[in-house]
Amino acid sequence: MTTTTQQSAATNGYSVIGSRPIRHDGTDKVTGRAQYGADISLPGMLYAKVLRSPHAHARIKSIDTSKAEAMPGVHAVATAADLPQPGGRVLDLGEGAMINPKFLSNNCLAAEKALYKGHAIAAVAADSAHEAELALALIDVEYEVLTPVQDVLEAMRDDAPLVHERLANLNDPNVRPGGLLDEGDDGKVGNIPNRYFYELGDLEAGFAAADVVIEREFRTKAVHQGYIEPHAATALWNADDSLHLWCSSQGHFNVRDQTSTILGIPVSKVLVTQLEIGGGFGGKTLVYLEPVAAVLSKKTGRPVKIQMSRTEVFEGTGPTSGGYLRVKMGTTNDGKITAADVALYYEAGAFPGSPVNPGAQCALSCYNIENGRIEAADVVLNHPKTAAYRAPGSPAAAFAVESVVDEICDAIGMDKLDFRTQNGAKQGDRRVTGPQFGSIGWLETVQAGREHDHWNSPIDHSPEADGKKVGRGVAGGFWFNGTGPASAIVSVLADGTVSLVEGSPDIGGSRAVAAMHVAEVLGLAAEDVAPAVGDTNSIGWTSMTGGSGVAFKTGWASYEAAQDVKQQMINRAARIWDIDPENVEYDAGVIQHKSEPELRFTFQQLASRLNGTGGPIVGRANVSPTGVGGAYALHIADVAVDEDTGKVDILRYTAIQDAGTAIHPSYVEGQIQGGAVQGIGWALNEEYFFNDDAHMQNSSFLDYRMPTALDLPMIDTVVVEVPNPGHPYGVRGVGEVPIVPPMAAIANAIHNATGVRMLNLPMNPGAVLEALWEQNGG
Amino acid sequence: MTTTTQQSAATNGYSVIGSRPIRHDGTDKVTGRAQYGADISLPGMLYAKVLRSPHAHARIKSIDTSKAEAMPGVHAVATAADLPQPGGRVLDLGEGAMINPKFLSNNCLAAEKALYKGHAIAAVAADSAHEAELALALIDVEYEVLTPVQDVLEAMRDDAPLVHERLANLNDPNVRPGGLLDEGDDGKVGNIPNRYFYELGDLEAGFAAADVVIEREFRTKAVHQGYIEPHAATALWNADDSLHLWCSSQGHFNVRDQTSTILGIPVSKVLVTQLEIGGGFGGKTLVYLEPVAAVLSKKTGRPVKIQMSRTEVFEGTGPTSGGYLRVKMGTTNDGKITAADVALYYEAGAFPGSPVNPGAQCALSCYNIENGRIEAADVVLNHPKTAAYRAPGSPAAAFAVESVVDEICDAIGMDKLDFRTQNGAKQGDRRVTGPQFGSIGWLETVQAGREHDHWNSPIDHSPEADGKKVGRGVAGGFWFNGTGPASAIVSVLADGTVSLVEGSPDIGGSRAVAAMHVAEVLGLAAEDVAPAVGDTNSIGWTSMTGGSGVAFKTGWASYEAAQDVKQQMINRAARIWDIDPENVEYDAGVIQHKSEPELRFTFQQLASRLNGTGGPIVGRANVSPTGVGGAYALHIADVAVDEDTGKVDILRYTAIQDAGTAIHPSYVEGQIQGGAVQGIGWALNEEYFFNDDAHMQNSSFLDYRMPTALDLPMIDTVVVEVPNPGHPYGVRGVGEVPIVPPMAAIANAIHNATGVRMLNLPMNPGAVLEALWEQNGG
Repeated sequence: MTTTTQQSAATNGYSVIGSRPIRHDGTDKVTGRAQYGADISLPGMLYAKVLRSPHAHARIKSIDTSKAEAMPGVHAVATAADLPQPGGRVLDLGEGAMINPKFLSNNCLAAEKALYKGHAIAAVAADSAHEAELALALIDVEYEVLTPVQDVLEAMRDDAPLVHERLANLNDPNVRPGGLLDEGDDGKVGNIPNRYFYELGDLEAGFAAADVVIEREFRTKAVHQGYIEPHAATALWNADDSLHLWCSSQGHFNVRDQTSTILGIPVSKVLVTQLEIGGGFGGKTLVYLEPVAAVLSKKTGRPVKIQMSRTEVFEGTGPTSGGYLRVKMGTTNDGKITAADVALYYEAGAFPGSPVNPGAQCALSCYNIENGRIEAADVVLNHPKTAAYRAPGSPAAAFAVESVVDEICDAIGMDKLDFRTQNGAKQGDRRVTGPQFGSIGWLETVQAGREHDHWNSPIDHSPEADGKKVGRGVAGGFWFNGTGPASAIVSVLADGTVSLVEGSPDIGGSRAVAAMHVAEVLGLAAEDVAPAVGDTNSIGWTSMTGGSGVAFKTGWASYEAAQDVKQQMINRAARIWDIDPENVEYDAGVIQHKSEPELRFTFQQLASRLNGTGGPIVGRANVSPTGVGGAYALHIADVAVDEDTGKVDILRYTAIQDAGTAIHPSYVEGQIQGGAVQGIGWALNEEYFFNDDAHMQNSSFLDYRMPTALDLPMIDTVVVEVPNPGHPYGVRGVGEVPIVPPMAAIANAIHNATGVRMLNLPMNPGAVLEALWEQNGG
Repeated sequence: MTTTTQQSAATNGYSVIGSRPIRHDGTDKVTGRAQYGADISLPGMLYAKVLRSPHAHARIKSIDTSKAEAMPGVHAVATAADLPQPGGRVLDLGEGAMINPKFLSNNCLAAEKALYKGHAIAAVAADSAHEAELALALIDVEYEVLTPVQDVLEAMRDDAPLVHERLANLNDPNVRPGGLLDEGDDGKVGNIPNRYFYELGDLEAGFAAADVVIEREFRTKAVHQGYIEPHAATALWNADDSLHLWCSSQGHFNVRDQTSTILGIPVSKVLVTQLEIGGGFGGKTLVYLEPVAAVLSKKTGRPVKIQMSRTEVFEGTGPTSGGYLRVKMGTTNDGKITAADVALYYEAGAFPGSPVNPGAQCALSCYNIENGRIEAADVVLNHPKTAAYRAPGSPAAAFAVESVVDEICDAIGMDKLDFRTQNGAKQGDRRVTGPQFGSIGWLETVQAGREHDHWNSPIDHSPEADGKKVGRGVAGGFWFNGTGPASAIVSVLADGTVSLVEGSPDIGGSRAVAAMHVAEVLGLAAEDVAPAVGDTNSIGWTSMTGGSGVAFKTGWASYEAAQDVKQQMINRAARIWDIDPENVEYDAGVIQHKSEPELRFTFQQLASRLNGTGGPIVGRANVSPTGVGGAYALHIADVAVDEDTGKVDILRYTAIQDAGTAIHPSYVEGQIQGGAVQGIGWALNEEYFFNDDAHMQNSSFLDYRMPTALDLPMIDTVVVEVPNPGHPYGVRGVGEVPIVPPMAAIANAIHNATGVRMLNLPMNPGAVLEALWEQNGG
């Protein structure tokens, strides 16, 4: 059962916004006709495979590719020596993530050192993937094996093994942040390239005013986004030194920019065609294969395709950070938070850039904290370089903060939603991290929880709960929502429909949502708009599909492009009637003379005569909108804990979220359900499991346990709509915040069921069993 | 040696216009990487072949496809029964050509009758082209063979065999033009669906005032455009009943519109991706294969490719008309034209629509005729349906008129360029066909001829002229130049370059020319603009590449889109400096504060910071420009005639033409040379040679003799630049008029050499020999 409280298009005053049209790309996708990253095939194409480091930390003393190159069927071998090792300015990856170009390059092909097991060392292009794979064994790499460091607290110690020889150590407050030290810089070298501090009010006085203070430490593990489609890239290096790439990514403009940086060529020499994407969740925002395929294509003059296996995806791409978290919170006995102190130390993996800063900014965002401090550290170690993962940084922070809040409520005996209402963040409150909150819907979301049947019903002791302990947990979560530049082009077709070209790779239905913006403006049906994602030369730079920002920014760009068309249609009618455009009205797809209403065109009628009356009509928009509205979610989880096995079953799960205006409610609900399910997997099962040599031991979907439909109840959704005043249709953003509350909601439910407080993720059967044993005196 | 008098960019006041950058698509084309119509390959693709009629005129009594369908490897068979036989309004094919949709459909797959040898009857899709070809033999077609009609004068007779049962006969002035008679219409049926009459002044009085009157009859044969690339189309019918087509054509929007009409589906259901085109010259403006491939894809659920052989191109696509022409002209003894009477009867082939009306409108356009009459008839007969061919209709008309002018000059003893100067058309003169001439450069073109070394030097008795008769001929020609709607989109890239998406298939360098318009506006180098031809959903409707109109209309659209970018760049700088855009100057790629000149950005500098200052910049333009300027050419030909064999050699050839402003002089010269060479082939060798059954006897490039480089001297070109006041950079149009004068120039040269007046084309050795024998008393 999926329930929803959002308004329908019939009642919200819109004609298309809020309705549920079939997605335009749906038929192609269900019939298998859609082209994903690996589906491209070009004449004369070669297939490449990547040699990966067997060591988590090793100096590369030499690479001898001569035997591989001599193998029949092999056309070329690439190593880091083929890349220019760019210096220069730090690259903005979107959502506040930055990376030094040399690190980005070295993550694609290791230079001086291999920094994690699975780190790409070389690649072979051959007539077939099989030959390429065979040739990998003929590459002789001489390694000097070094000691890996794989614990975040251990890596922060001054005597830890150094992942990089010249990386700043921000244990030393005199060292400036930002990665590599300059030559001759006498700053201290270490594994902490970035560190962030935020403080508001008087922390000491705040804790002094508290009746209850709880302080807890938490540990989380790296988890992978687990998208269905492995990475694939195909490159064609042309004789004029231009490069054409076909790949699926969350941002083909980002692929273009990153690849051109790594290759040291201008962006205008790189054209990226975006193919369909089978999931990204933040993990398809960094390039891995594209520059390698490009180098091999340049060397061979042939198109080159590389695709990863699932093991390569796990070992060679970025999961999100595991980390160490500490939360200390004080309240009065009547439930007012007086102070909060949070420390987040996140693993960046082998290169700087964990999402610890956004995590810090989200950590306390459900509450109005007058006295607070947040400290955050970005720590490198010998695991794969992390990448973004849905609401990067926020889920682990919420796990810690919402667990402590739960414990505080228990300690003072206060209802958990009353506590959140009482302390809840609202417009105008100042964040610990600085800015004031804008228009937000957290209190409305909590209120929707208080009123929900789930919150007001006893736990359903269904058959699967028989003989198990049951409990209920609740937790909230925050994500900023993001935005960025976006472009859209709308062309009128003679049959009264329009085409739309926009720049956002479509993961969650964004083509349909962008089309609905156009349809709403022009008074057309959603089906009358044909949306497509343009390549990097056919549209303006559009920031990646991330930050829950596509409906916001590309929706807005589509809205503006449609407004451009609308104005041109008005002008055209005015020209035909030889009147001032001021005297033309456009309403619900009808263009009408204001004073002589018998003079009117339907959109279709005017569209059919454009060519004869002044030419085609194409609208364009380029936007970089601000006014994004933050997203809040409240999740309620009922669990059953098997005390014999430690296994936790989810009995009932309700995800309540303020989406702003829900453009396409089905996709909003789908995003909420998907995010909740990923959070449940993160809570109960998923983790990168490393041995002492920092080798991942579960790099397949058999061993890396993601939840399936059989593991889960239907995720009920409630879409709260507090329209964002910063968007023409009130859009906020949907995709990320639903992954934030589940870990704490389930931990709190386990505590409610068993009295055991789980402080580490995942809360898998073994961990729960150990905690139960410990509770029972071991 | 190529000479040119056009100004260079250095002297014409422009920085890019008039220069000769390397074409952007050049490297891909010379390295074989460019994708032409047949280069597309899709997974699971089937190959189709077309069964063609063995009879020039036959009723189709039945088609039995069952044996073919049962053959292993065959997936589907298509016939006219699979097409809805559309009625409805006549389709505008551009350049004034119209066609009834049912005729267009029946030309793709014959319905009631086969109307020419090679007419498509059915098509088979199979796993391979070979299997498809084998299966054609298994299709049983029962024909009732009818008498073909293949001479234009014979077809015009009331007792001629009827090509169509219900086609209007405009021998009867009471019958309205336009093709098929309505059911129950009692109009007379015949083979003359269209007829045109123009008259100016007092013809009788004009001839009465003449001292010399010459009247001659001419005959010309059908000739093919002879493009290198045969037709190919690939169709993918999707499960949502949308259709994706890949093909090369002169107008992918036309392909979309024609195909949707034939299939009876909305244009928005058809997406056409334009591939590179290996020549069109007017012959790739009609669809032949696309609807057939679409039907086969719909039936099979697989992509289907069809490509023609050269013989299919000759027999199954449209050459231009052969015809009958009569010209009567009177002058005074001092060389003033007093009257002209012209009749043009052009073969349309099997369906209405010869270019006789544009031929009529061009016929007398070099001269100021005060008393004139032109009559034109469009005649159907049992030959392939004609298509447009470079300056459609004008070459044959010029052959007739300029031959008579030559004879008149000889009769009154007047210099042939003096005669043209004295009677030459100029701005403000009224045409026989109605409108007044606008700004034209005919007199300047004639003057350039008078001053040219060729005109002022004796004929070079080079070794190859030894023992042959040599002579010089001159002739002029006119073509309107065309325009139509066009769209362009320009996006700024962060490295200070821009991309351009436009809608004109690039035959003669139009991508480069459009890019040069953008570069000129923005103060960039041509290389800094990356042009691409968008698909039919990514840009507004753009009329086809024809009518010599691409540099004019798509150049103009690109100019306007660049102006849109320029204004947005100004606005952005104003926003950054917090001043009014009025106070910002944009000059030569530098954006500058008018009063504080130290505040300045180069285009590159501002481009690199767009995302942070308000988002990307994309410009768009949709134009349907008027103001096109007519094109005039004057050609001078020196020939040597071998009296023993009748073979005519071209000794020297100079083509002088008013191009308006030459955007890219190399491409202007190339167009002039190419047009002249095609005209020389038409003059001396090319013809559709039919036997009595109307079967083409020379349907290969071995037997259909086109000139090669070995047959020709270098074609010298003179680009006269009389800027067109109706275009922002003065563009006229270049591509078509150079094919107009060659036939008359060479006929006049043969006459000058031998005294023989050739009245029929081609003037091949046999024809010349017969004429010489006749001159010598047979």
